[in-house]
Amino acid sequence: MTTTENPVRNGVDTATLFATLDAVKGNPEIAKFQFRASNRWVSGTHNQSTVHGFYGATQEMTHEQPWTFDADHPAVLVGKDNGPTPVEYVLHALAACLTAGLANIAAARGVNLTEVESTVEGDIDLLGIFGLSDEVRNGFEQIKVSFKVKGDDPEKLRQVVDQSRQRSAVFDIITNRVPVTVEVDAG
Amino acid sequence: MTTTENPVRNGVDTATLFATLDAVKGNPEIAKFQFRASNRWVSGTHNQSTVHGFYGATQEMTHEQPWTFDADHPAVLVGKDNGPTPVEYVLHALAACLTAGLANIAAARGVNLTEVESTVEGDIDLLGIFGLSDEVRNGFEQIKVSFKVKGDDPEKLRQVVDQSRQRSAVFDIITNRVPVTVEVDAG
Repeated sequence: MTTTENPVRNGVDTATLFATLDAVKGNPEIAKFQFRASNRWVSGTHNQSTVHGFYGATQEMTHEQPWTFDADHPAVLVGKDNGPTPVEYVLHALAACLTAGLANIAAARGVNLTEVESTVEGDIDLLGIFGLSDEVRNGFEQIKVSFKVKGDDPEKLRQVVDQSRQRSAVFDIITNRVPVTVEVDAG
Repeated sequence: MTTTENPVRNGVDTATLFATLDAVKGNPEIAKFQFRASNRWVSGTHNQSTVHGFYGATQEMTHEQPWTFDADHPAVLVGKDNGPTPVEYVLHALAACLTAGLANIAAARGVNLTEVESTVEGDIDLLGIFGLSDEVRNGFEQIKVSFKVKGDDPEKLRQVVDQSRQRSAVFDIITNRVPVTVEVDAG
């Protein structure tokens, strides 16, 4: 079966996906995006972010709706448990990025998926953020992602997961360095 | 005013915060945590993560409730916009981590906060994840965090933000390397 005969595979509109890639090849400026989140402190370790606008394809855009997310620390870490911890959102982001890529890449290669599940585990020693050890880092010491994928030939599925890892934005952000600047208006 | 006279500052229970630090000093095993997310593919680039259980303080624990988050790509990136992109969750996580730390550190230092807002902007060139350039990385090229903080003396507020950056788990995860392993069961 060719792509032309089945333009939607795994819920991915492959015709539009390939057309988008062609458009970007013709004008690489389309590929420059800026994503954003705005955050507001509520109380203690509880705070809330909103995600709505972004820049991409040479223009300001918005998602169809704004989304708001609470973050907090659990009681054992002196919070009120009004939401996941910030580091749990990082684990979610990693799983989500690898899974989205997996679906796109499988569709582009003509590989059918029936089920994709994953668990992500991040080990962190809080001696770092507590400032109780100079030898322990603040962030995760390691992260383990476990995928369970069903669909076509297992070897093809493994190759698709591997390619997703190699083309994942969040995997790159976590496993490599991103420069971050922090500005403060305390006026 | 001493901590004893005002154990709750900025919504942070400083008495419990200091007691927790003392407990960890007495038994560093308490500080070993594992956070987790489980993800399920829905269709196309749409998938959903659940955050509930974690390990910490030498035992299995759960948040007071499970939380579920949708991630997707917007239409311009061939998705259905059922939720933020994975990379936007990373920006939220960074803002949330810095803000939670800011509130804790300010409380521990006796610095009062009245308002904390931040915006996080992440620049990404999608030529990387599209596989159209070997010179462009997959993840953010740079991230800019802009804080607006009100409360006590501006110089003290700036110092608190700086200390939060130095003790932030997510700032460390993004600005340094975390080893990530990916396992696949395609059976």
